[in-house]
Amino acid sequence: MRLTLKLITPYIRTLLTLQRPGVIQDGFASILTPLRKMTSQGQGVVAREELHSYVVRCMEAVGTKRGHAEALADLLVSADYRGHYSHGLNRLDMYVNEVKAGMTSTGQDNEPTVVKETIATALVDGNNVLGPVVGKFCMDLALKKAKEAGIGWVSARGSNHFGIAGWYTIRAMEQGMLGMSFTNTSPLMVPTRAKEPTLGTNPISLAAPGNNNDAMVLDMATTSVALGKIELQDRKGEPMPSGWALDKSGKETHEPSQYAGLLPLGGTEQSSGYKGYGLAMMVEVFCGILSGSAFGPNVRSWKEFNKKANLGQCFIAIDPNAFADGFSDRMSSLIDHCRNLDTAEGETEVLIPGDPEKKHMQECDGLGGIPYHPNQIKFANELADRLGVKPFEVK
Amino acid sequence: MRLTLKLITPYIRTLLTLQRPGVIQDGFASILTPLRKMTSQGQGVVAREELHSYVVRCMEAVGTKRGHAEALADLLVSADYRGHYSHGLNRLDMYVNEVKAGMTSTGQDNEPTVVKETIATALVDGNNVLGPVVGKFCMDLALKKAKEAGIGWVSARGSNHFGIAGWYTIRAMEQGMLGMSFTNTSPLMVPTRAKEPTLGTNPISLAAPGNNNDAMVLDMATTSVALGKIELQDRKGEPMPSGWALDKSGKETHEPSQYAGLLPLGGTEQSSGYKGYGLAMMVEVFCGILSGSAFGPNVRSWKEFNKKANLGQCFIAIDPNAFADGFSDRMSSLIDHCRNLDTAEGETEVLIPGDPEKKHMQECDGLGGIPYHPNQIKFANELADRLGVKPFEVK
Repeated sequence: MRLTLKLITPYIRTLLTLQRPGVIQDGFASILTPLRKMTSQGQGVVAREELHSYVVRCMEAVGTKRGHAEALADLLVSADYRGHYSHGLNRLDMYVNEVKAGMTSTGQDNEPTVVKETIATALVDGNNVLGPVVGKFCMDLALKKAKEAGIGWVSARGSNHFGIAGWYTIRAMEQGMLGMSFTNTSPLMVPTRAKEPTLGTNPISLAAPGNNNDAMVLDMATTSVALGKIELQDRKGEPMPSGWALDKSGKETHEPSQYAGLLPLGGTEQSSGYKGYGLAMMVEVFCGILSGSAFGPNVRSWKEFNKKANLGQCFIAIDPNAFADGFSDRMSSLIDHCRNLDTAEGETEVLIPGDPEKKHMQECDGLGGIPYHPNQIKFANELADRLGVKPFEVK
Repeated sequence: MRLTLKLITPYIRTLLTLQRPGVIQDGFASILTPLRKMTSQGQGVVAREELHSYVVRCMEAVGTKRGHAEALADLLVSADYRGHYSHGLNRLDMYVNEVKAGMTSTGQDNEPTVVKETIATALVDGNNVLGPVVGKFCMDLALKKAKEAGIGWVSARGSNHFGIAGWYTIRAMEQGMLGMSFTNTSPLMVPTRAKEPTLGTNPISLAAPGNNNDAMVLDMATTSVALGKIELQDRKGEPMPSGWALDKSGKETHEPSQYAGLLPLGGTEQSSGYKGYGLAMMVEVFCGILSGSAFGPNVRSWKEFNKKANLGQCFIAIDPNAFADGFSDRMSSLIDHCRNLDTAEGETEVLIPGDPEKKHMQECDGLGGIPYHPNQIKFANELADRLGVKPFEVK
C-alpha cells in the first residue's frame, strides 16, 4: 500500500503528514482546509521574509549564485503563501539536491540566453539554471516584447522545475498585462486508450487583471488531480473517486495501491478524458515541441536524478491595451457576476480561479506569516543542519 | 421527456435521427460510428462540390453576398467531411434564418474591419457578417502578422456563429503555421458550485503540422459534452453518464429530462470540473473580454433570434520557424509515439487529436462524397424548395 512513496521521492511532505479528512471532497477548498487545520492545531507560523532568507541560505550553501537563490526563494515563498504547499518549502530539498549533484547549474557562470528572436517572439536556452531564473528571464522578455508589439511569446529549453505556473503569470499581471505560462513535466499521465504514462501533468496558467487589484488567476494541471491527492487517499486507506487514475492494464482504478498512471482532465474516454489528453499535448507543443527541449515520454522520470531535466516551458504576455478599451472593467464584471451567482444546493459561495489562493493569503496576513505543520518545520530544521546554515525562526 | 427539443431549436438534426446505440460510449469513435451506420443502411452520398454549390445557392437566395456564401459553404462542407455533422449542413437553416431575419448581415455593404493593430496583434470588428467570413479574415490577418513578427494574435467582436473551430486552425496549418482559434457561445455551462448556465461551451482548437501532411488537430468544447449528446440519451431513454449535466438545483443528474445545464470538462468539483470552468473563462478572456463583444451571461441565449449575436472570437497564428528548427520532426515523433503506444485492455488503437476526423475523411473519399441520413437529405430538399433553389444531387 505504500507504493506511492516509492514513486515520488521528494513529494508533498506537508500534505502527507496532515491527515486531513474530507480534503479530497473539497476541491476548490483544498487550499484552505489544511491551513485551518494547522492553525487550529497551533502549528508554527513563519514570516515570509524569514522563510525567504532561509531558502537563500540553503541554496547558497550548495553554491547557487545569490540572485538565482533569491529567485527561487521568491517562488517558494509565493507558493506556500498562496496555499500551494506541495510546490513551496516542501520542494526545497529537491532543488538543493539537484544543484548539489550538478544536475542543475549553480548559475555562477550561467544565465539564460536568447537563441533566436523576432519583435514578438523568442527562443531561450535556460542553460540549465534554476527553473524560476529561466522563467523570470522569459516572462520579463515576453513583457518587454508585449509593450512593443502587443504580445510577447517566449518558449524555452534547457530549463528545470519552475514551481507554480501562476508565479510567472502574476508577474505579468502586476504590470497590467495578461500573463500565461506552461511547462512540460515528467511522464505521469496516460493518453486515452493507452496504459503507459506518456505526458506530464503539463500545467496551464492565465492571470488577467480586473479593477482594484482584483484578478482571475487560473493555475491548473491538465490531469484530473496531482499525484499528491492519490498519495493522500492511500494514506487514509480510502478509495479514489472516479476519473483520477488507471491501473497497469489501463483500466480505471479506485484503489490507490493499484495506481499506475494519472487520468487526464475529464477522466475516462466516456467522460471526455481525451480532451484533457489533447490539452496536455497542446502544452507540450508550446513547450517541448516549439523549443526543442526534452518532450513527452523523453522527459526524465520523476525519480530520475542522474540526468539533466532539459524541460521546455512557454511564457506569454499580452497587452490588453492593444485590444478594446476597458479590459479591466469587463474582466471585473465577469468575475463579479460569477461570484454573485446563486449557489447550488448545499454550497455557500461561487468562486473564480484564484479566489482560494486569495483567501489563503488573507489568512496568512492575519497570522503574520505562513503556517506549517510541525513535520515540515522539523524537516526544514534538519535541512538547515545538514547544510550548516541557520534555520528559520518560528513564531 | 422531449424537453431538450424546446431548448435547442436548430440543433443536431442528423444526430437526433440516427438512433445510434453505443455512440455515447464511443467517445473518440463517435465521429465514425454514424458514418458506418449510415453507409451500412445505404444512405445517400453527396459529393462535396455538390453540397458546396447548394449551400451557396441557399445563402444567395436570402441575399448573402457571393463571397460570404462561399466562405460559409467551405466551412459547412469541411465540418461534415470531418465528421462534425452537428456543425455542417445541419446548421444551414440557422444561418439562412439569421440572414433572412436581418440578424446577420448579408455582407452586401459590410466586411470585417481592423479597429486597432500592432505588428503582431489586431482588434477586428466583424460588422455582423457571417462568422466564417469574420474568422477567415482574422486568421488571414494573424497569418500575415505571424510571417512578419513570428506570431499574430487577433481578437474579434461583432461576429456570429463560426462553426467548427478547427476550420480556422487547419487554414493556418496548411501554410506551415500553428493555428489556434476560440469563440464564446451562448450560456449553457454552469460554473462550479452554481446552478445557472453562465458561460458557453467555449471551444479551443490547436492545429500543429507534422511531417508528410500529418498533424495534430485539437478541436474541443470546454464542457464535458455538447448538448446534442444529452438529446441523444433523452431520445434513447437512457441515463446520462457521470460528469455531463446538472439539474436546476445545481446537483448532478443522470436523467436527461432533468437537464438544466452542462457541466464543465472535468464534471463535478470532486472530479476537478472547476478546471473546465477555468478554461471556459480563459476562452472568454481571449474572446469577449479582449474584444469588447458580448461576453459570458450577456451572450444571447441559444434560442434567442431577435437580437444580434455580437460574438467574440480569437485567432492565433504562430510561425514555428521563429522557434527551434525541426518543429515538424518533433511533432511527428510525438504523434507517432502516441499512436504506437500499447493499448489498454479492450482497446485496439491509441489516437491523437484529429485522427477520428482523418479516418472520416478517408471513408468519405472512398464513397466519393459525404454520406447523409435520409432525414437530413429530406430536410435539405425542403429548404431548397422553401428558398426556391435547386436541391443537391444525391448519389
